[in-house]
Amino acid sequence: MSKENGQGKVRVGIVGGTGYTGVELLRLLSQHPNAELVAITSRKEDGLPVADMYPSLRGHVDIAFSSPDKAELTKCDVVFFATPHGVAMAQAKELLDAGVKIIDLAADFRLQDIATFEKWYKIPHNCPDLLKEAVYGLPEIRRDAIRNARIVGNPGCYPTTVQLGLLPLLEGGKNLVDASSLIASCASGVSGAGRKAEISLLFSEASDNFKAYGVAGHRHHPEIVAQLQDLTDQTIGLTFVPHLVPMIRGMHSTLFARILPEARDTDFQKLFEERFANEPFVDVMPAGSLPETRSVRASNTLRIAVHRPDGGDQLVILVVQDNLVKGASGQAVQCMNLMFGLSEDAGLRHIAVLP
Amino acid sequence: MSKENGQGKVRVGIVGGTGYTGVELLRLLSQHPNAELVAITSRKEDGLPVADMYPSLRGHVDIAFSSPDKAELTKCDVVFFATPHGVAMAQAKELLDAGVKIIDLAADFRLQDIATFEKWYKIPHNCPDLLKEAVYGLPEIRRDAIRNARIVGNPGCYPTTVQLGLLPLLEGGKNLVDASSLIASCASGVSGAGRKAEISLLFSEASDNFKAYGVAGHRHHPEIVAQLQDLTDQTIGLTFVPHLVPMIRGMHSTLFARILPEARDTDFQKLFEERFANEPFVDVMPAGSLPETRSVRASNTLRIAVHRPDGGDQLVILVVQDNLVKGASGQAVQCMNLMFGLSEDAGLRHIAVLP
Amino acid sequence: MSKENGQGKVRVGIVGGTGYTGVELLRLLSQHPNAELVAITSRKEDGLPVADMYPSLRGHVDIAFSSPDKAELTKCDVVFFATPHGVAMAQAKELLDAGVKIIDLAADFRLQDIATFEKWYKIPHNCPDLLKEAVYGLPEIRRDAIRNARIVGNPGCYPTTVQLGLLPLLEGGKNLVDASSLIASCASGVSGAGRKAEISLLFSEASDNFKAYGVAGHRHHPEIVAQLQDLTDQTIGLTFVPHLVPMIRGMHSTLFARILPEARDTDFQKLFEERFANEPFVDVMPAGSLPETRSVRASNTLRIAVHRPDGGDQLVILVVQDNLVKGASGQAVQCMNLMFGLSEDAGLRHIAVLP
Amino acid sequence: MSKENGQGKVRVGIVGGTGYTGVELLRLLSQHPNAELVAITSRKEDGLPVADMYPSLRGHVDIAFSSPDKAELTKCDVVFFATPHGVAMAQAKELLDAGVKIIDLAADFRLQDIATFEKWYKIPHNCPDLLKEAVYGLPEIRRDAIRNARIVGNPGCYPTTVQLGLLPLLEGGKNLVDASSLIASCASGVSGAGRKAEISLLFSEASDNFKAYGVAGHRHHPEIVAQLQDLTDQTIGLTFVPHLVPMIRGMHSTLFARILPEARDTDFQKLFEERFANEPFVDVMPAGSLPETRSVRASNTLRIAVHRPDGGDQLVILVVQDNLVKGASGQAVQCMNLMFGLSEDAGLRHIAVLP
Repeated sequence: MSKENGQGKVRVGIVGGTGYTGVELLRLLSQHPNAELVAITSRKEDGLPVADMYPSLRGHVDIAFSSPDKAELTKCDVVFFATPHGVAMAQAKELLDAGVKIIDLAADFRLQDIATFEKWYKIPHNCPDLLKEAVYGLPEIRRDAIRNARIVGNPGCYPTTVQLGLLPLLEGGKNLVDASSLIASCASGVSGAGRKAEISLLFSEASDNFKAYGVAGHRHHPEIVAQLQDLTDQTIGLTFVPHLVPMIRGMHSTLFARILPEARDTDFQKLFEERFANEPFVDVMPAGSLPETRSVRASNTLRIAVHRPDGGDQLVILVVQDNLVKGASGQAVQCMNLMFGLSEDAGLRHIAVLP
Repeated sequence: MSKENGQGKVRVGIVGGTGYTGVELLRLLSQHPNAELVAITSRKEDGLPVADMYPSLRGHVDIAFSSPDKAELTKCDVVFFATPHGVAMAQAKELLDAGVKIIDLAADFRLQDIATFEKWYKIPHNCPDLLKEAVYGLPEIRRDAIRNARIVGNPGCYPTTVQLGLLPLLEGGKNLVDASSLIASCASGVSGAGRKAEISLLFSEASDNFKAYGVAGHRHHPEIVAQLQDLTDQTIGLTFVPHLVPMIRGMHSTLFARILPEARDTDFQKLFEERFANEPFVDVMPAGSLPETRSVRASNTLRIAVHRPDGGDQLVILVVQDNLVKGASGQAVQCMNLMFGLSEDAGLRHIAVLP
Repeated sequence: MSKENGQGKVRVGIVGGTGYTGVELLRLLSQHPNAELVAITSRKEDGLPVADMYPSLRGHVDIAFSSPDKAELTKCDVVFFATPHGVAMAQAKELLDAGVKIIDLAADFRLQDIATFEKWYKIPHNCPDLLKEAVYGLPEIRRDAIRNARIVGNPGCYPTTVQLGLLPLLEGGKNLVDASSLIASCASGVSGAGRKAEISLLFSEASDNFKAYGVAGHRHHPEIVAQLQDLTDQTIGLTFVPHLVPMIRGMHSTLFARILPEARDTDFQKLFEERFANEPFVDVMPAGSLPETRSVRASNTLRIAVHRPDGGDQLVILVVQDNLVKGASGQAVQCMNLMFGLSEDAGLRHIAVLP
Repeated sequence: MSKENGQGKVRVGIVGGTGYTGVELLRLLSQHPNAELVAITSRKEDGLPVADMYPSLRGHVDIAFSSPDKAELTKCDVVFFATPHGVAMAQAKELLDAGVKIIDLAADFRLQDIATFEKWYKIPHNCPDLLKEAVYGLPEIRRDAIRNARIVGNPGCYPTTVQLGLLPLLEGGKNLVDASSLIASCASGVSGAGRKAEISLLFSEASDNFKAYGVAGHRHHPEIVAQLQDLTDQTIGLTFVPHLVPMIRGMHSTLFARILPEARDTDFQKLFEERFANEPFVDVMPAGSLPETRSVRASNTLRIAVHRPDGGDQLVILVVQDNLVKGASGQAVQCMNLMFGLSEDAGLRHIAVLP
């Protein structure tokens, strides 16, 4: 499968390895049995050993950052973009032409509607043709397409939880809940905002505090709506309110969906259990469970609990994941595994770190 | 107004001063210009100077805990119960007979429906007659009744935020939102659970974590529903999901209410601003605001922001308070001020501690 | 005492009110019974109401930031500089000439040795004459000088704890401990680093983490040594290791001093208690106490506990304070009170917020 | 090597698997390539699937807790005791007689001096003979003895950091530092106190707070002193002050040692680097480094940095580890690897989780 290492290992490059999704890719890939890390680029940190920036990698990652022009990314089998929005689409064509597959952890290949992309990300999309062939990298919904993809747009963190939490209710033309009045009240650890020197992300600002943000509009809203709309003929209407939690990692989504009168007899617990029975990274917990974000800390597992308070008409779906793993870098590795015919959980079997 | 101190100061007793609402009462009352702290009871800590348990009070509170039988509570003008549920109702009659007013921070006098009380609190209610005369201590709704009350049932923390966040939408027979499908997705700091030696409240369990709890049923749900029902002829239907946040103090409620077709032209920002214009402790923030719990830390202020995403039919109301102040002890002092004809904000003008 | 408000209130200006010491000054001064806040400058935020930046001040502080040139600081009685190093010394002369007193919370007037200042702060000192008359603002050591000062250099946060923790051992020519081998192992909450957009101060970096910093050299080291040297004829030798703690406010210093053979019979507990018996803001705790930073959170109190493990030769002094109050803004207000003949604890009687 | 599984895997039992060292053993051992988990005992939780108590283990650990009498621990090759002090010594003889090796994570086999044990742990030691053969499980000092041990007393968390941080200075009869005036100012995350329902460990007590504890005496003090004394002919004198940090995992020790006059020319950086050059789990960082606890979170690595401020006579050694891994369960597994002739780092190659 691989171009030249002769060991059957996938040769991996990372563009932009200095942020949190970058260092998480390094943690996962440097322990991956079927991957070989060959290049990490950073224009600013050219020459700096990666482990000098992240001492946690001392003894595990020996290579240095290199500037993008020196990195010889075309010798890789796959390149991950852990970069700001807009970088992947600028470099995609050259890499694809060299036979390199691409997994973008930013938003360049998430939204098929270019106008929507440009509205929310404030940059023009410069490769509409490639966008058309790009696959949205949520394996639980698009596993086969990912297997055959050259370009994967890795989902946003919130969208992963909201889609998987609503999937069994909407897919396949089901009329189980009112798709026009969905509500997602979500909460994220601070690492979800990235490794950016911003006042609002300081410890002294974000600690011992809780707040909503993006209520008037958040980039993940159109992404979620577009993907959910693909699942159903009903018109999706979603109110999405993200909140910032004083924790490093972790994402919790509390989803509210109103059960349609004709679906009142549905066994929703069973519906979810059956839908995800064969999914390696989705854990439908027993009825009555209250999933905690720490139960998935540093692991690629996403856990779901289904509640129907008082047996009424309001479903409450609780979903947790680690925003940096299943919500970002772990999901990207899961996609890589699929794209290269590896075991889907290769390098992703870590048990959550608790406490 | 006072029985014997000759200084016009209200003589105050506290039953159960060792928990978080107790120490917060001590912080507020020992600095209150019109109150004199005369007794704090604790059977277990009889004789222990209060400041030995709470060094933060060294130099400010000189009295010791005394056992309930020695405390001479009947010489007080008012007694606060910062106790487990059931204690206040056992002692209420004797105190009232001695002319002492009562403010209970537990649930004994919150729920007028005895069956509901007994279902949720698992103890019989032993003074139905007193319950009837008890006033629910939310000044923004029942100010005049509180002024004349002998017994006040201080509201729960969640109920305070949910009621004040929905009040302008429901009171006075308005048909602005669908009262049958209200949703409250709330989040509380850990101190809301009290000072109890429970595994789930340990730092190593609650830190760096986020979870929902009480989804199948929470004691504050019937309290909120009963109080909201008093405001409107519509039938209240409320889905209430509380969450636990790794912070000490602070409560944030995200409320969802569906606007009725006939109310689409309402100026909701103005509605809220006008309703609370004269309230000393409710701050309706400018349109677009995102209130943070830290903006009210250690203060008696509750802040509200009104959102209507995309101008659609879903109202999103954000409410923050300090669960130990406006959500408990501060509100109790506010009631005391009303009951004794003091300035409503006496002893409650603290500015929030930020950062 | 005051220039023009006719109410006997000190007219106060603040230069640089956007940082943490600035907002803390605002919290303290806007509740101060003898002070009137007349101007807060910020070049960048000119015209912005202060409460728009800090919603915690809504309803308490009505004025807006003004640019330094418009601020009419010369009409103040006193101006606090909550600015980066170098700002106060640039503006000091003009203000003094107008009869305005100055309290600098930065380092411009802390170090009498100009070479040392310039070595550590990397800027030239441009008013050596004013420096000579400046008084180091630690009231427990220099109360009378502060009363008469026109310029006060407010101490650094670490220096306050280390000096007060060692003061009884060194002052007055005592030979109680070996002054040449003192050790200060200190720990600070993150707010001590200020409100700066730096990666290392992000929640995702500083939370759930502990580290030493500045081991090779820290600006507070020469400040501490110079001040301690003023107390004794022994030559001061101090090893100072600060650490960063994942908490917002709070400072804890663990001081090690070796008892000299001739001092082995000293009653150190008594020594400390007597030294600080009349200090309004120093609390010597009972023998065996273990002070917690939260016991002084948001208050101007500094607590000390004296330990002598196994009755041996090593003294261990534990000191806690709130780095933003006694370690910065509270201490500055304490100095102001002295400079204007007010009660030393005016506006500073806040009880610590616990929990 | 193994008794019956026929796969060359070590058959492992855990007594007391419900605490934090227990769940950490489960995390490590269930992913260990050469170990098979066959029994976990808990009298209280008999029959409860382990993953029901720790959802983080869902999908990874399938067995249930069993009561000690049913557990058939004698069929194991090794049994870990993650129990309160006193349990291992009560069961040791029976297991040893059945050919089972023992690794005790409590203190039963740490202190060779029985009087000292009984003074600090308040229970009689009931198997002095076995104590004599027990080996103190710090591989970096006693690797060969561990290889041949039937009983290992796993070191305390603080002792591991203090010993490894001072080892190169004291072992082999060196006279490099004054061993009589050593100082260890240490800081631990809250999980170090275990999973106990105690008020002082609550989130609302321990968060946003920092304090020293055990200054008058701590159980790890005699353990450290006894072990250090084994390394040198100098008489060890150690002042040990532990502190509690608001973080879950992590331990940081700041060690102070006074350089002897004859050792002033020593290259201490080189001394440490050479001593630990071949140690798989000790990382001597480059000169000037400031190790962070998060750089070893969830990994078995211990990092050391050597400082000599201003080139003076005071050495400052900084040491970090994860208290639950190298400070407890990871070290125990490292010992197991040695006892069974496995690669010393088998099952322990996890990269630290950062951020």
